[in-house]
Amino acid sequence: MARLRGFQKLTSIDKSWEKFLARLQPQRLDTVSLPLQEIHGRVTANHVRVERDLPSFNRSAVDGYALRAQDIDGASQLHPKILRLVKKSYVKEGETIEIWTGNALPKGANAVVMLEHVRKTGREIEISKPLTPGANFSKQGEDLKKKEIAVKAGTRLKPHHIGLLAASGLRRVEVVRKPEVAILATGNEVVALGSDPEPNKIIDANTIMLSGMCSELGAEAFSLGISRDSEKEIESKIKEGLKKADLIITTGGTSVGLHDLIPEVIKNIAPHSIIVHGIAMRPGMPTALAILEKKPVIICSGNPVAALIGFEVFARPLIQKMLGVKNEERHRLRARLTRRVAGVLGRAVFLRVKVHVKEGELWAEPIRAKGSGIFTTVTRANGYVIIPTDREGLGEKEWVEVHLFDYIQWRR
Amino acid sequence: MARLRGFQKLTSIDKSWEKFLARLQPQRLDTVSLPLQEIHGRVTANHVRVERDLPSFNRSAVDGYALRAQDIDGASQLHPKILRLVKKSYVKEGETIEIWTGNALPKGANAVVMLEHVRKTGREIEISKPLTPGANFSKQGEDLKKKEIAVKAGTRLKPHHIGLLAASGLRRVEVVRKPEVAILATGNEVVALGSDPEPNKIIDANTIMLSGMCSELGAEAFSLGISRDSEKEIESKIKEGLKKADLIITTGGTSVGLHDLIPEVIKNIAPHSIIVHGIAMRPGMPTALAILEKKPVIICSGNPVAALIGFEVFARPLIQKMLGVKNEERHRLRARLTRRVAGVLGRAVFLRVKVHVKEGELWAEPIRAKGSGIFTTVTRANGYVIIPTDREGLGEKEWVEVHLFDYIQWRR
Repeated sequence: MARLRGFQKLTSIDKSWEKFLARLQPQRLDTVSLPLQEIHGRVTANHVRVERDLPSFNRSAVDGYALRAQDIDGASQLHPKILRLVKKSYVKEGETIEIWTGNALPKGANAVVMLEHVRKTGREIEISKPLTPGANFSKQGEDLKKKEIAVKAGTRLKPHHIGLLAASGLRRVEVVRKPEVAILATGNEVVALGSDPEPNKIIDANTIMLSGMCSELGAEAFSLGISRDSEKEIESKIKEGLKKADLIITTGGTSVGLHDLIPEVIKNIAPHSIIVHGIAMRPGMPTALAILEKKPVIICSGNPVAALIGFEVFARPLIQKMLGVKNEERHRLRARLTRRVAGVLGRAVFLRVKVHVKEGELWAEPIRAKGSGIFTTVTRANGYVIIPTDREGLGEKEWVEVHLFDYIQWRR
Repeated sequence: MARLRGFQKLTSIDKSWEKFLARLQPQRLDTVSLPLQEIHGRVTANHVRVERDLPSFNRSAVDGYALRAQDIDGASQLHPKILRLVKKSYVKEGETIEIWTGNALPKGANAVVMLEHVRKTGREIEISKPLTPGANFSKQGEDLKKKEIAVKAGTRLKPHHIGLLAASGLRRVEVVRKPEVAILATGNEVVALGSDPEPNKIIDANTIMLSGMCSELGAEAFSLGISRDSEKEIESKIKEGLKKADLIITTGGTSVGLHDLIPEVIKNIAPHSIIVHGIAMRPGMPTALAILEKKPVIICSGNPVAALIGFEVFARPLIQKMLGVKNEERHRLRARLTRRVAGVLGRAVFLRVKVHVKEGELWAEPIRAKGSGIFTTVTRANGYVIIPTDREGLGEKEWVEVHLFDYIQWRR
């Protein structure tokens, strides 16, 4: 029986990504128009321009009196200026009108004096300080002028963006539709979450985990179920996924051996469909990237940690490309390693670390584990450091760049 | 007519928060048991312990051959060791069994040699390197032992936590119920989103924005609508909110003047209910904090930027306390200001900045604006800097700590 004896050569992450993109030429997905109530977390398809000035009128920023700044020129404690309080819709020389925060500035007025800065006596107010024209009100269009861009294309919409669009009179926005991601778990030893497994079975954690990661990115995941290690069953499920999905992610059946099933099945469906198999990373070395019917297939290891890193490195940026979202790399920071760690020459090692603050300094504590596939190394961490391929390890107290995927405890 | 002439004195943010907490004594809300499919983003009520060992058996990490490490002691290129390939459920001296990634290690075996590191000849395999006991498999319980804590109490559940719980045989988790937040907008000049407003009306942007911010934190927001500047209407809506909500947030009607309605209404409902009114911050100076029927009421300015900062400073940590979530402060980083900015003595100024990378250094660009209430100062920013109360300003190139609320563009 012929056997593949390990990966003949591993491809670097950058080279893998480059080859994958070159063949795939991923396009931003089509768009859909949604009411503001439904756009939270979605990505704008185009620059969004406002439909009216913001504010839409000269709006008082304080409670007080609208006036003409020129009428109180030179006002002082010794020589206060007196203005006549009127009830009209416009202000003439020597007149003033009571006004509240949010009200429109009456015609003729070009400043507002704050309530607490005047003395009121009957039908007159006394002002002892001058104001510059434009004081204490927001000029019409000061925030945004009609047809100006409020939110750029490719923006992930957060509540403050939605607030701005609401304030500017918009009701609907064109956003990119959600990428559909099909997830296939494989392995004779794998049983579905919710079943009552024998001790020698593995419960499928990948489907629920990867689905959650898709949903955090604004993609819609659906499960193709768990396939036995059968070429026929895998092929049929992948073909099912291709009907609906924009992206297929599989877990399990990727390592080089008899059970190296998924890459084989994919090659059988279409020759030259495997772009890369065997990537210079740890964990996730047996990850493969393929294209079937012009759709990307990301073939991850069955180990949940490797699947998670595979998703992080390839699925995350791919989904972001499909959405056309700009600048959504994880937060980074520089910290010092609390202890030395070993790398693997020729592999980019994803070291899970917990960043913490000690005496005002940032430290990254590598999470100890025997194997690279220990799940709790992820759940105890809040970030990862990539040990470069050309480093045998990183030293104690060495400065490293951490990619954060969870919060840091800043205060004790 | 008697008039309040401005706030007699402003309370610092820290002091306001302290007084509010001391009176409120906020408790974590009650809990609910949910299936793993519904816990994404929820917060664990207790330490979550696993129900079986993870892995639940000695699990091979590679494709290869299970063996006894002592049988290949001293193996080398010159003197390889030969093992007999058998098909049984246990390994005896001199024997080996074919095994795939994820399979259970047969009894008797204490190591796995990788497929690609052996020479197979008929019914024998040849090994030219020794292995330590424990090599290439995950020991039962290595990741987590039965009853060990997988996820601590007060953890916001992310997909990798859910994956770990799934892998460990859990099906349901006790999480904290969602805080219910009632949102009330007020103002005669305010009209609902979706209406066709006259140019001198303000469209309510606060309700949709604050609802989105609640939902990002895992709270459930509901709207009490928009109230006219009428004591009766405001009182009735606040009472409606108290029936169901854990927290009420109002916008508008907080400044000191005739229209200082909400604090007045709240005082009328119950004396001593206003804890703080007038806070040493900018924007958001007229913010007030109150307690009605033991429930917190956060009274924000009607200006959307001030409302947003009021939410950030008071509602966000309060909702986090209700959820019992630990360590969820915003990411921070240190950057240098691109230009000098003015502060306001006696006020904590929330300066919106855009952090960017230039020649490998982090810079925080203050977003230019005339007023502190300009909405686009938030939407163009990715973080804020707090100018301390005792600083007249911050200098060009000064190092500042930025609290991030959006991503940074790391690469060009």
